[in-house]
Amino acid sequence: MATAILLISCPDQRGLVAKICDWVFIHNGNIIHADQHVDDRAGLFLMRLEWELTDFSIPRDAIGAEFSQLAATIGLDWQLHFSDRVSRLAIFVSKQDHCLYDLILRQKAKEIVAHIPVVISNHRLLEPVAHNFDINFHYVPITPETKADREQEQLELLQKYEIDVVVLAKYMQVLSANFLQQFKEIINIHHSFLPAFPGANPYQRAHQRGVKIIGATSHYVTEDLDEGPIIEQDVIRVSHRDTIDSMVRKGRDLERVVLARAVRLHLERRVLVYGKPGELRTVVFD
Amino acid sequence: MATAILLISCPDQRGLVAKICDWVFIHNGNIIHADQHVDDRAGLFLMRLEWELTDFSIPRDAIGAEFSQLAATIGLDWQLHFSDRVSRLAIFVSKQDHCLYDLILRQKAKEIVAHIPVVISNHRLLEPVAHNFDINFHYVPITPETKADREQEQLELLQKYEIDVVVLAKYMQVLSANFLQQFKEIINIHHSFLPAFPGANPYQRAHQRGVKIIGATSHYVTEDLDEGPIIEQDVIRVSHRDTIDSMVRKGRDLERVVLARAVRLHLERRVLVYGKPGELRTVVFD
Amino acid sequence: MATAILLISCPDQRGLVAKICDWVFIHNGNIIHADQHVDDRAGLFLMRLEWELTDFSIPRDAIGAEFSQLAATIGLDWQLHFSDRVSRLAIFVSKQDHCLYDLILRQKAKEIVAHIPVVISNHRLLEPVAHNFDINFHYVPITPETKADREQEQLELLQKYEIDVVVLAKYMQVLSANFLQQFKEIINIHHSFLPAFPGANPYQRAHQRGVKIIGATSHYVTEDLDEGPIIEQDVIRVSHRDTIDSMVRKGRDLERVVLARAVRLHLERRVLVYGKPGELRTVVFD
Amino acid sequence: MATAILLISCPDQRGLVAKICDWVFIHNGNIIHADQHVDDRAGLFLMRLEWELTDFSIPRDAIGAEFSQLAATIGLDWQLHFSDRVSRLAIFVSKQDHCLYDLILRQKAKEIVAHIPVVISNHRLLEPVAHNFDINFHYVPITPETKADREQEQLELLQKYEIDVVVLAKYMQVLSANFLQQFKEIINIHHSFLPAFPGANPYQRAHQRGVKIIGATSHYVTEDLDEGPIIEQDVIRVSHRDTIDSMVRKGRDLERVVLARAVRLHLERRVLVYGKPGELRTVVFD
Repeated sequence: MATAILLISCPDQRGLVAKICDWVFIHNGNIIHADQHVDDRAGLFLMRLEWELTDFSIPRDAIGAEFSQLAATIGLDWQLHFSDRVSRLAIFVSKQDHCLYDLILRQKAKEIVAHIPVVISNHRLLEPVAHNFDINFHYVPITPETKADREQEQLELLQKYEIDVVVLAKYMQVLSANFLQQFKEIINIHHSFLPAFPGANPYQRAHQRGVKIIGATSHYVTEDLDEGPIIEQDVIRVSHRDTIDSMVRKGRDLERVVLARAVRLHLERRVLVYGKPGELRTVVFD
Repeated sequence: MATAILLISCPDQRGLVAKICDWVFIHNGNIIHADQHVDDRAGLFLMRLEWELTDFSIPRDAIGAEFSQLAATIGLDWQLHFSDRVSRLAIFVSKQDHCLYDLILRQKAKEIVAHIPVVISNHRLLEPVAHNFDINFHYVPITPETKADREQEQLELLQKYEIDVVVLAKYMQVLSANFLQQFKEIINIHHSFLPAFPGANPYQRAHQRGVKIIGATSHYVTEDLDEGPIIEQDVIRVSHRDTIDSMVRKGRDLERVVLARAVRLHLERRVLVYGKPGELRTVVFD
Repeated sequence: MATAILLISCPDQRGLVAKICDWVFIHNGNIIHADQHVDDRAGLFLMRLEWELTDFSIPRDAIGAEFSQLAATIGLDWQLHFSDRVSRLAIFVSKQDHCLYDLILRQKAKEIVAHIPVVISNHRLLEPVAHNFDINFHYVPITPETKADREQEQLELLQKYEIDVVVLAKYMQVLSANFLQQFKEIINIHHSFLPAFPGANPYQRAHQRGVKIIGATSHYVTEDLDEGPIIEQDVIRVSHRDTIDSMVRKGRDLERVVLARAVRLHLERRVLVYGKPGELRTVVFD
Repeated sequence: MATAILLISCPDQRGLVAKICDWVFIHNGNIIHADQHVDDRAGLFLMRLEWELTDFSIPRDAIGAEFSQLAATIGLDWQLHFSDRVSRLAIFVSKQDHCLYDLILRQKAKEIVAHIPVVISNHRLLEPVAHNFDINFHYVPITPETKADREQEQLELLQKYEIDVVVLAKYMQVLSANFLQQFKEIINIHHSFLPAFPGANPYQRAHQRGVKIIGATSHYVTEDLDEGPIIEQDVIRVSHRDTIDSMVRKGRDLERVVLARAVRLHLERRVLVYGKPGELRTVVFD
């Protein structure tokens, strides 16, 4: 049963919920999810609205154009998605396979509704995993000297495979500002409870600091390393008995689950990013 | 800033959100919270709507009557509350003081917005605690023979103190069906993760069963003991090293927090109970 | 670096730790893990002791015989294990693949140190998964009429593959008392927070009851269904928004992690079962 | 039933557990808790040993001297405590009362075994709380100019009341290096999941960063602000719906529980600090 999904943001004002819900109602749409949030400090109204396309009086192709008229009168920023337009993911990996397997298996189990036409890696190690599930694999090694060219190659692959979303599933490379300007929907998993332990070797540093809880964080990638808007986090208890190795092992379980939740929330269009550059935050309409 | 709160339920149908929000909007209400839920299996629509009274074009006293007209056309069940109408709690206790102290201190800290005019107990032990915070204390001992009379006495106290909500804060007595028919808003804390370990001695039984996690459950009281609709639950990890005593200690922390959250959610009118008798469930609009 | 592991239980008495540690020390063993627990109510002392075999003055083959002399003087029950004796697992499955994949991938990643020579199922569905990882697959369909014969077939397979531990990884069949008498080390995953919701359809019942937290439990299998000694449990928060489907999805994440932890703890010989029949509990020396 | 508690650390070597347990055993001590840990990277052995004083063949007053002989032969660092020597706490507060109430009530409930003879504050606000429970209250206001003198006054109060442990229960002042050199056992509660958000206004910064989980950390106080060795941490989930106020409210629950656990672990002598200056860590023998 296909649905339309609107993600909306605008300066807060009276009557927004009524006006927007009304628009769906008078066009005979059956709302199955409506959630909104007002960020008082930012004076911002944010909303997610999902309704069934069956019996909706505006043809699918015309919905955007029609809604843009209402949006213009109120001053809305908006995105329109259709639930039956299945997103296409590219998974970037290095040598670790746990998040890659996890995403592929969830996609097979339909927990994550997406196509995964391609895996891209700076190592050949996980090629058999991709092929095992009939996914194309491209080896794109990166050195400081070749980075610019190689990223161009990656971007061409994204275009060729008509990719909507890139998932960095333990891809141990930093994407350049140029790459980020050319491709926007990128989700990363960081193996710490950000903002604790950004950057390299978080488990070692967590062990050294003697924390009693470790975490993992999934976020959108921005030019500020490990500073992008957070989609999901989770944690697990550790003790002095945990070695760095056992922290890594416990962390892998977190990484898998946190990344999968974030990808799923993104694909279901439940995440709205807002805020000033450098202070971007998410609303997660779950 | 006073607000009006509507809790609504009705058979699901098209356009409910739009119609109801519209009604607030055309009367110049500024919606600050709107959340709804559809229980597909029950075919039921449930909603919480909160808007500012300032500038609302219907006088406070007439809101109910006005809304009842809309409600009648749609077939809504509804409750109307005003945020500045502060509820009056009676706390029932036996000998344990941790939940009593916790509720009183949260009320003083304004985490819980309520009046607490009276504590009622079947023991004299906690009288000093109540008096210490200038709360009336009534000793109403219960024996099997006197139970009916004593409950009548309790009900008269509830009337005298104009009580809206009874909180059973480790009150180790079962209320009779008669009591429950005469007073409806009663919240209990049970010291287990229901439906595990209903009834007596849950910590002993949890210890004996060797569970690795224990919990606490706050629920509305119904005639089916420990079967009332659940408002909130939480858990904590235990191990073989935990004695029954240490489980009781850990459990007290859960009981405090879980009961306080439930009372707060109830007082903010965020909880809607629905379902068939014997299978009542809650929607918690938090 | 190979180690010896002793799991010990006996009536509590003075000097046990000293006597047992002394025995290892005078034979030049380097203790790397020693943990003990006294169950005061049962009057029972339980201990796990692990030491390096390098330089130990008793040859590996003679350690059991030598220790049995000390054990006899104190009245110990004991098991001796060697860390380099890799256990052989048989995984029983039905149609769900998430725990199967999880165990195989963890074994490949060396999180779980074991051989997995065979998968046994009452359905053919997961045969490709097993073959994909070069694991033998045996299809043993079960009907009420054929159950006795088929279980005999299963037991012969366990013998043929020299299986030490059976893992029921979402095997939706109950093993008979006869089977359980002939094979002892069996670990199950149950998709609820036991003792809540034993038996069939726990997620449906959790949904109907309106609990705010769901769980999963891994336990040793005994003749009392879902009553075996608990090895590990974990939970996740749910709300009224969760459908049975989303509970199942969240539950799968719990099931994977809880079963994997239990298998790992068992294989590292960190779990000791004790207690009266029908009230068996575990000590987990983690 | 009084016990002796030894906390031990030394370079790791063979036979330590056996030698130390033996010493207790031959003097007829009944060990009720023995736990040890080896930090492989530091090459350090750490142990906690607790035994009953009844029937122990060395008089209480001579235990230290006797053990020091064994300790000298092995090269041990050690502390000896007696469980019936009840510690004396001073609680430092500013204006917030939740941790103060919590500690006092737990002490009354015997969850925390300690005397609390004095509360010291830089504000008069909580004087009635202290007096209410018959605890002395000293008002010691702090200004940048008077800080040195006032800290001297505080130190004299600690001496006068024979204080063993200072608990900073939301004391919003930084203690000087001089103070810390003169008084060692100081436990603080910080309202963030350290090392995230050290310093001022952690909830505001957590809100701004858009984290999905917040925490609290209890640690020993060292000259490096918020860098002292961590005793206990805990976390709670938040979402975009949480305001800074609701984060503060949720955080108070964490602060109470985390500080109480840390104080309890310290008083039961379950915490051992070790490591290089600036990288101090704890072993928590719980």
